[in-house]
Amino acid sequence: MDGVLADVYSRFFDLHEEETGIRLTVQDIIGLKEAEAFPSQLNWVNSPGFFRTIPVMAGSRKVLEKLNVQYEVVVVSMATEFPNCLTDKQLWLMEHYPFISWKQIVFSGRKDIIQADIMIDDHVKNLDKFKGETIMFTQPHNMNNPDSKHTRVDTWEEIEKLLLI
Amino acid sequence: MDGVLADVYSRFFDLHEEETGIRLTVQDIIGLKEAEAFPSQLNWVNSPGFFRTIPVMAGSRKVLEKLNVQYEVVVVSMATEFPNCLTDKQLWLMEHYPFISWKQIVFSGRKDIIQADIMIDDHVKNLDKFKGETIMFTQPHNMNNPDSKHTRVDTWEEIEKLLLI
Repeated sequence: MDGVLADVYSRFFDLHEEETGIRLTVQDIIGLKEAEAFPSQLNWVNSPGFFRTIPVMAGSRKVLEKLNVQYEVVVVSMATEFPNCLTDKQLWLMEHYPFISWKQIVFSGRKDIIQADIMIDDHVKNLDKFKGETIMFTQPHNMNNPDSKHTRVDTWEEIEKLLLI
Repeated sequence: MDGVLADVYSRFFDLHEEETGIRLTVQDIIGLKEAEAFPSQLNWVNSPGFFRTIPVMAGSRKVLEKLNVQYEVVVVSMATEFPNCLTDKQLWLMEHYPFISWKQIVFSGRKDIIQADIMIDDHVKNLDKFKGETIMFTQPHNMNNPDSKHTRVDTWEEIEKLLLI
């Protein structure tokens, strides 16, 4: 969800600027973990309401709706680290992707017990443990990773080309 | 979680008595689905705070703590049907089973994508779809089900005998 459907970085850049007056760019934080790039990240993420304010990743709504017709889509989010955000996360999903039902949502403390054929994720640690086809969605923290094992995509349009056309 | 760790029926009996003045017993509702036995069940379950009031299933804390040493335990709960209850459910788990970390919790809209070796569940529909060893925890709604495919247990002490002794 975060970094694939939810454009968390876009919000992180705004909040960081509000707090420090400094506008960071993607170039400034390539290869850094989220908490390294944004020292206040954990505070933001833990705040009730935070997840209701995240912009939708460009193109994700249109392509996910199409995928949802041809594939059995499940949205899996690492979310139990922040129990106060669980409801916010689901309400956000229901608002922006109304074609995804509650039966297609999983909030988990680990992703390696989820059985599926294809995983689209931004975190190498999740993709590395997955047994099926892996698609790495480009985000600043994974830009330095070699692409050998996972198919890298930079946009949802590339996911559409890969899985639908 | 519900009907295995969380003694939801105990709370349903109380709430039904508060609403109707009638104290039902297990005998009255054998084989009925929860919503058939308690017409207000959906309202109760949807109410914020409901899941913070559920008693712990007798023996579950002690046995789950022991299981947690010898097994890789994951608590999987069908919970996304009621997004307002997600946070309550996790806070309840953290309060009563503090040895279970957030990494061991999954709130899901379906259980058939969870990969594991053993499933302890009260719902035949979940157990039937599971590929590993299945243990059916007796609850009023499953009392009429034939036990052929799943190992039936009535108490957490029986789970202890089955998996630990």
